[in-house]
Amino acid sequence: MPCSESASTLITAYADVPAFARGQVRDLRIRWALEELGRDYRTELLDVYHPRPDAYREWQPFAQVPAFDDGAQRLFESGAILLYLGEQDERLLPADPATRWQAITWLFAALNSVEPFVAQIGALDIFHAGKSWAAEARPSALKLLESRLAATQDALGERDWLAGTFSVADIVMVTVLRIIDHAPILEAYPTLTAYKARGEDRPAFRRALAEQLESYASPAQSGE
Amino acid sequence: MPCSESASTLITAYADVPAFARGQVRDLRIRWALEELGRDYRTELLDVYHPRPDAYREWQPFAQVPAFDDGAQRLFESGAILLYLGEQDERLLPADPATRWQAITWLFAALNSVEPFVAQIGALDIFHAGKSWAAEARPSALKLLESRLAATQDALGERDWLAGTFSVADIVMVTVLRIIDHAPILEAYPTLTAYKARGEDRPAFRRALAEQLESYASPAQSGE
Repeated sequence: MPCSESASTLITAYADVPAFARGQVRDLRIRWALEELGRDYRTELLDVYHPRPDAYREWQPFAQVPAFDDGAQRLFESGAILLYLGEQDERLLPADPATRWQAITWLFAALNSVEPFVAQIGALDIFHAGKSWAAEARPSALKLLESRLAATQDALGERDWLAGTFSVADIVMVTVLRIIDHAPILEAYPTLTAYKARGEDRPAFRRALAEQLESYASPAQSGE
Repeated sequence: MPCSESASTLITAYADVPAFARGQVRDLRIRWALEELGRDYRTELLDVYHPRPDAYREWQPFAQVPAFDDGAQRLFESGAILLYLGEQDERLLPADPATRWQAITWLFAALNSVEPFVAQIGALDIFHAGKSWAAEARPSALKLLESRLAATQDALGERDWLAGTFSVADIVMVTVLRIIDHAPILEAYPTLTAYKARGEDRPAFRRALAEQLESYASPAQSGE
């Protein structure tokens, strides 16, 4: 729970975001990991509607969230932060070398072989909605995404989690699959649909999501 | 040098690729890392023009290259393979925690915060060349890419390498920046242009590139 102002772990998030982005912003990944560990953290909330302060770019060069600081390391990139947390706790990254490398491999796969194709559909459907070129671009983008989803589903097979046991790879893959919640795409992949639901059913995910959404609803941010 | 049939390190690559992809396929990243270490490796060359054998998907679920096997671990995803090699040798990933995490953070950033935007321009310019929707899509894709390049250049600053010292982060970032060699984009970023040239000037990079290109030119593959 991000309940303690004295928590040594700090992450950045947004004070508010447009409706389509609620429950999607990547600080959710780090909140989820910290909730799996039951680890206190505090948040520094940034204004998404205005340029971030120049000083923030020294911490997060792309001026995005999340950034992370636990007093020992200042990090950015959700993948790097998750790997860092995983190296500290087997609940996020098993220590057995074969399982560990399977998890790390799928962490990278989720970020580099699946997310770009999911994000492309999200961009076409949301940021470029209504543009005729976006409609023309969508079939080829969807075909690429479908091949990645089919391959991921085949690789998952009968396992509950990508590395057999739950890991940071699942935190990224489940949150990546959520990016296309707006469109009827994933339902053609029943194994992946069940996998995503399994992730979203974890108490730590539910707490993390509630905390992200609560931060957007805070009176100070909603103007009440 | 990939000269020894008895080398214990095996990577997959393609026996041939279309002209636009020569010097771009991601096995180059692993060849480069292995050349930095002076480590023997052998290659298994796959046919890019026909579907890969089903058995290959058990190793590389997306049926792409590179996949990696050193007898201890069978991996895929260039980012994961590079991290694995980096954990074995400080020449690829410094052991000092602050530098190590800076390198790992930039490894993820190159793969998730820069490569998707570079690859998108590559897809529009090469795979979708001549399509009117691709021309209409390009300005917004280019604007996104330019913001990532500007941020990366600012973050690099006066340093030679992303983590101060050379690391796997640079292997990915330099090869990512090469994806837009076909277009006059990077030249507006002199610091990044010099950084990319610094990477390409490393003897290990030159050897890796020559080996990839030689494999495409091998008589067995060219039909001679």
